[in-house]
Formats: sequence, C-alpha cells, structure tokens
Amino acid sequence: MRMVDIIIKKRMGNKLTKEEIDFVINNYTNNLIPDYQMSSLAMAILFKGMDSEETANLTNAMMYSGDVVDLSSINGIKVDKHSTGGVGDKTSLVLGPLVASLGAKVAKMSGRGLGHTGGTLDKMESIPGLSIELSEEQFIKQVNEIGIAIMGQTSELVPADKKLYALRDVTGTVESIPLIASSIMSKKLATGSDSICLDVKYGSGAFCKTIEDAEVLAKAMVEIGKHLNRDTKAIISNMNQPLGLAIGNILEVKEAVNTLKGNGPKDLVDLCLNAGSIMLVQAKLFNNKEEAYNALLDVLNNGKAFDKLKEFISAQGGDVSYLDDLNKFDNAKYEHQIYASKDGYIEDIIALDLGVAAMKLGAGRAAKDDIIDYTAGLILNKKVGDKVNKGDLLITAYTNKENINDVLNDINNSFVISSNYIKPQNIIEKIIE
Amino acid sequence: MRMVDIIIKKRMGNKLTKEEIDFVINNYTNNLIPDYQMSSLAMAILFKGMDSEETANLTNAMMYSGDVVDLSSINGIKVDKHSTGGVGDKTSLVLGPLVASLGAKVAKMSGRGLGHTGGTLDKMESIPGLSIELSEEQFIKQVNEIGIAIMGQTSELVPADKKLYALRDVTGTVESIPLIASSIMSKKLATGSDSICLDVKYGSGAFCKTIEDAEVLAKAMVEIGKHLNRDTKAIISNMNQPLGLAIGNILEVKEAVNTLKGNGPKDLVDLCLNAGSIMLVQAKLFNNKEEAYNALLDVLNNGKAFDKLKEFISAQGGDVSYLDDLNKFDNAKYEHQIYASKDGYIEDIIALDLGVAAMKLGAGRAAKDDIIDYTAGLILNKKVGDKVNKGDLLITAYTNKENINDVLNDINNSFVISSNYIKPQNIIEKIIE
Repeated sequence: MRMVDIIIKKRMGNKLTKEEIDFVINNYTNNLIPDYQMSSLAMAILFKGMDSEETANLTNAMMYSGDVVDLSSINGIKVDKHSTGGVGDKTSLVLGPLVASLGAKVAKMSGRGLGHTGGTLDKMESIPGLSIELSEEQFIKQVNEIGIAIMGQTSELVPADKKLYALRDVTGTVESIPLIASSIMSKKLATGSDSICLDVKYGSGAFCKTIEDAEVLAKAMVEIGKHLNRDTKAIISNMNQPLGLAIGNILEVKEAVNTLKGNGPKDLVDLCLNAGSIMLVQAKLFNNKEEAYNALLDVLNNGKAFDKLKEFISAQGGDVSYLDDLNKFDNAKYEHQIYASKDGYIEDIIALDLGVAAMKLGAGRAAKDDIIDYTAGLILNKKVGDKVNKGDLLITAYTNKENINDVLNDINNSFVISSNYIKPQNIIEKIIE
Repeated sequence: MRMVDIIIKKRMGNKLTKEEIDFVINNYTNNLIPDYQMSSLAMAILFKGMDSEETANLTNAMMYSGDVVDLSSINGIKVDKHSTGGVGDKTSLVLGPLVASLGAKVAKMSGRGLGHTGGTLDKMESIPGLSIELSEEQFIKQVNEIGIAIMGQTSELVPADKKLYALRDVTGTVESIPLIASSIMSKKLATGSDSICLDVKYGSGAFCKTIEDAEVLAKAMVEIGKHLNRDTKAIISNMNQPLGLAIGNILEVKEAVNTLKGNGPKDLVDLCLNAGSIMLVQAKLFNNKEEAYNALLDVLNNGKAFDKLKEFISAQGGDVSYLDDLNKFDNAKYEHQIYASKDGYIEDIIALDLGVAAMKLGAGRAAKDDIIDYTAGLILNKKVGDKVNKGDLLITAYTNKENINDVLNDINNSFVISSNYIKPQNIIEKIIE
C-alpha cells in the first residue's frame, strides 16, 4: 500500500477501505507518513468528502491511535455529553449532577484547551479545594458510589488527532465535515462512555455559523456513533448570543449552582432539560423523553439536583460551603456597567466578541500557559428580544485589570439595538437521533 | 502574508495575486514554507484551478527562482521548440538544423531526465566525438556563427520546479493543468529563447491521453506565453503510435539524418515541416507558414538541411563521417525480428509499451545512474493503417542483452491487428496560436 495511491484514490472521489484508512492513521501517528502527504490527503478529503462508513473508520483508527479508557468496571450505562463550544457554556456543570441525581452514570474526562473562558476543568477548579486530578481507580470508584466524577485526561488519548489537528490548522484543511466529526468523536469515544449526547451549536459564537452547517456536522457524528455502536444523539442549539447570562469561571459556577437550585436563565434551563432527557433515555432510566423531562423538573425544584452537585464537588475535595453561600466566592476588583444608548429591542448580542472580551478581562487563555483569573468575566442583564430603554443596564464587566477602555468599547459594540420589535430566540433548534 | 491564508483563499476558489504567488514560490524555494503547506496548496490548485494570469504569474515566479539564461548577445530572434515527450521523438535533432539552415537562431539548452530512450542530449552523444558540454560563451558564439547549438544545462535553472515537482510526484498533485503548464513553461522560458513552438502530444504514448487534455494544456501554455510576452504557439500531435520508425539513440540519429536528407518517414516529416513553418514565422524570416513550408521542403531536398546538421555536429566536435556513412555507427550484437501472426490491418501500436520495451533493451534509463546502450532499440516496419499478411515483418529489436524473451513478448503484444480496414493516422491534430 502506498500513501500516494491513497491520496489519488480520494482525489478521484473514490471510497477508501478500512485497511487504507488504518494504514494512513497508523503510519501517520508513527511518523512513517510525512506531513506533506497527510496535508495533501486532508485537502483531497476536504474537496471529495467521506461517506459515513469511511468517516466511522477514520474515527475508529484515530480512537485506537493511543490509549482508550476502559470504564467497564462502572455498573450501568455510562452517559456523556459534548458541546462543540460556545460562549457562556456551563452545561456540563449543570447536566452532570442533574442526570446523576436521577441515577445516570456520568464518568467524564475532559481535556484542557484554549478558550474564551476556560473549559469545564477550569470552572471546577475555581471552587476552592476542588481537584480534577483523580487516579483512574478513584474516578471509577466515585462514579460507582455517587454517580458522577469529572477529571482531567491523564493518559495519551488520540495522538493521531493531536498531530492531525495541528497540521490541519496550518494547511487550510480545518473546515472538512468528516475531519471535524472524526476529530470530535474519536476523542469522545476514547474516553469510554457508552452513550453521547452532542450539543452542536450554530451561530456567530460557534464554530458552525449556520443551522445547516451544524446539522450536517451533527448528522455526521450521529452516523459515526451508529457505525461504531455507541448510542449518539445530537441537539442543534443557538449560539447567536451567549448561553445564559454569565461568562467567566466563578460567574458561570454561580449560574450553574442557581440553575441546579431551580433558578436558572430560561435558555440554559431549556438546553439542560432537553439534553438531560436525552441522556436519561440513553441511560435506559426512562422510557421516553417526556417522562425524563418531568423527572428533571422535579429534581431541579426539590433540591435533589443541587444535593448531587454538592455530593460531587465534595467528593473531589471542593469546599461546598461556597455553593451554599455564593457570596463567599472572590470578587474581581473592578466592575464596569454598560448601559443602553437608546430605546428599542435587543437585536443581536455578538457572542464571539463577548467571548474575546471576557478573555481580555482575564477569564480565558490566549496562549497555553496563560493563567486564568477566575473572578473575571461578564454578566448580561439583557438577552436578544428584550425591550430596553435608554440608560438600562445591558451588561456588567468584572476584572482585576486596569486600562480596559478598548475592551469595554468592544463589549458595548457587541450589543445591537433595533427600533423594531425583535422576537426572543429559541435555544433548541432541532434534535438529531 | 500567511501561507495558510493563501491556501484557504485558493481552496475557496479565489484568484491569487502576483504578490501572493511570488511569496509562495520565493519562500518555498528558500525552505521558508514547509512541504506540508505547499502540498496542500498544490491539491487546492488541482481542484480549483488557476486562471491564465495566475498561471503566468506562477510561471514567472518559478522562472526567476534560479538562474535565467541571457541570450541577448545572440543576434536575431531565438526560436526554440519543446515536446511534451513521446516514444521515438527525435524532432529536435531534425528541426534544429532544418530551421537553422534557413537562417533561424536555435540556442537550445536541454536537461537530462529519465526516459524510455534518452533525451536529445543522449542521442547527440551517440555520435562519436560530440560534446554537449559547452561554456556559455562557446554556446553563444556558435549560435551567432552557424545558427545552432545544443548544450546541457549548467546553471541551476528553476530550482522551484525541481522542488515542487518532486513534492507533487508523491502527493498526488501531478495532474493539474496550471501546475503542469507552469512547470514546462518556466523551464523553457528560463533558457532564454524569444519564441517557443510547443509540440503537445496526446495518446497512449504521451502524458496527455486524449486530444482534449492536450488541447487544454497547449492553450494554457500559449496563454502563459502571451502574458509573459514570449511568442508561443502549439501543435497538438498524435502519439498513439511511435513517431517515425526508429526508437533508440543511434537508430533515431540515423532516422534524423535520413529525414534531413529528404528520406524521412511521413509522420516525422509532416511534424517537422509544420513545426518548422511555425518557427520560421516566429523568427520573422517568412511572412506566413505556407512560404516557410515550401522553403523547408526545398532545403530537405537540396541538401542544405543536411549540410547544416553536419556543420552543427562538427562545431560541437562530432565526427561527421558517421553522418555521411551511417553504416559506420556501432550495431547491437543481437537482432530479433517479430512477424505478423495473421492477415489484416495494423489497428494499434501501443507506443508506451514499445517505449518501455526499448528501455529494457538498453536504450533508456530506469534510474538516474543507468548507462544507456546507444545501439539498442527498435525499428518499426509497419505503422497503424498498414495492410499486413501473416508472416510480414512488423518490427526488429536491437540489443546487447540476452534473455529478453519477456521483452520480445511485450513487443509482439503491442501490435494489434484487425481484420477490418483501418485508416492511417494523421500526425497533426490541431495548431493553437
């Protein structure tokens, strides 16, 4: 088998066999296929695509390019969710305890990346005392005992993706559905969960800019799950404005806590109830989403979801007194309020710009070694469709930095106010299963 | 300027600017752009193409990536021809003296490559005493004095093409018209000629398998010439069977000599008269091709073309007594005749298979350091459309090798005899100007 023949085969639009895909990924991972052939193949895939079987085979080959987590010693069906990323996305912190409080097994291994406001691990670490560094034994024991654990990845999962993603990033080959879908799914499947609920976001603040793009990606990933026998469902959700009201680590933890106490913002609650229903059916704890949905509403209102959060945070060493009294958390030194400059309706809140602004306030990492300021971030006071009068508070910025006039200006510009009536946006666009 | 942005721009189907193309080629030649980005761009170009201006800019950037030959001290318009390569192609040896005998200036620098039967330089070197190693001064002096010189390339011409071609070869990106056209034309233009007559071959023995492919390539190269102000015309010629009757170095020299004496095979003569007419008009020595054509017929018949050949060979140290008495050339130790197995018409003579067979007999190089046996090769006795009876001689193989039964078998199989009438083939399909 020769790599050049495989490149030409794909370039001509032909289907690659499992053996050919295994050959490519194994040899690329082991540095036996050079980057210049891999980038050329990636470009050919970008133009000619891969069918669902090829994409599943690619995912499988990448998944087995490194360690694969074995969760078989956890009793019951392990459920997981994955979001394609957005601004103000704290769903993992809400959803995990929520479904665990109804008996689902959540064994989540997260990676750390760059991002506007840190990832789930960073948000967890903003709770004093909490550790995300568990041994695999502790991790499994915790899930068996209380139904939920979230830890940082220790073993080398999916080295093929690490290498291939870095290459795609500099060779103009990021925007290929089979490559994106296999990248996400190989990492997710390598962490060992039995079922996956995907939250594929679209909009200005998401990787997919349109609903159509998000749907194509979601379907590709659901198909991978089908081919590889892992129950995979997907929600298409709106990321044209930030999710919820909080952006930034401690601010998002507080919002997650309030949500688990039954006081969450509508869009975040909607998204968690829908994703949670899917996960509970995937866990075979409910026969249908409607029953699961009602049960989720109950645990949000009767305190059981919040109790599960405390149990989970406590098991990982976190000081739960902070959850009982959110005022105990540190606050940023400076607060800046931004007000509406005219009467009207909020037409747009440019999520990506607010994400970047939050990062500049200290909430995220621009480079790998940047240190996150857990207190920094933004609290929205208005969402798209809200009526505002001139002088109404739109958003508050929290930071320990000085000289941030440019950032405040960007934040102000990310609000678009229309004089016409604007309809509030729905968070859930579609469910793919 | 970032290479990744240029890759994405081309991937999206947009036109690259001259500055972007210069950036790519300059930095790639100087190893500042890595192979993995270049191969990805090459694949994007393969899919999205380049318009004639981009292709010309690419050609120009490649041409200036290394030395460019300065022929300005040669008086008059310098004409050159270039063939895209085929089996039995000895046109340079015929055309050079032919047009030089009518006053055209032929200053040809050739490279050496792999090939079924060596290139022009190898064929020349099969004449005892002849040297293709001239200094640039000798070269220019010889062209000024007798109108023709052919030498091996000394300076480093078009290093960008050398690097890019090697990369394309292993990354499945050879078959792109703008990349092929710019590769050929950058090398040709770097050798300094004012005008170029291209012989773009199509058929089983050529790079372009169909007339349509050859025409697209020819048009792309003629367009490059227009953009870069070098008078470029192209002939589309048939390479479904070998050109002429001889394949192999000394055998082809003999055929070239006979052709210049007015005794050439019809297809070779046709091609040389047509290409020669174009070149003489390009040299502004004749007003139109018809007048040039008649003058060429004259010099073939009155001995002037053959005299110019002898003058040229003599100037480069070759022993012209071999040209006067072709029997002086060495002969191969073994001859093998192959005969028709049935009555009928020759339907096909698979040029590529005969080229490979000639190489195996010793006439060409499979690897860079192989030594050519100048005496080895093939002499066809029949061409497509000829009527044959069972037992008629089809072809003779010449070699110094033993145990060549497999090769003889392949040669036999390259002749297809039909019981139906088959029309002889035309050598010239079209002229693009």
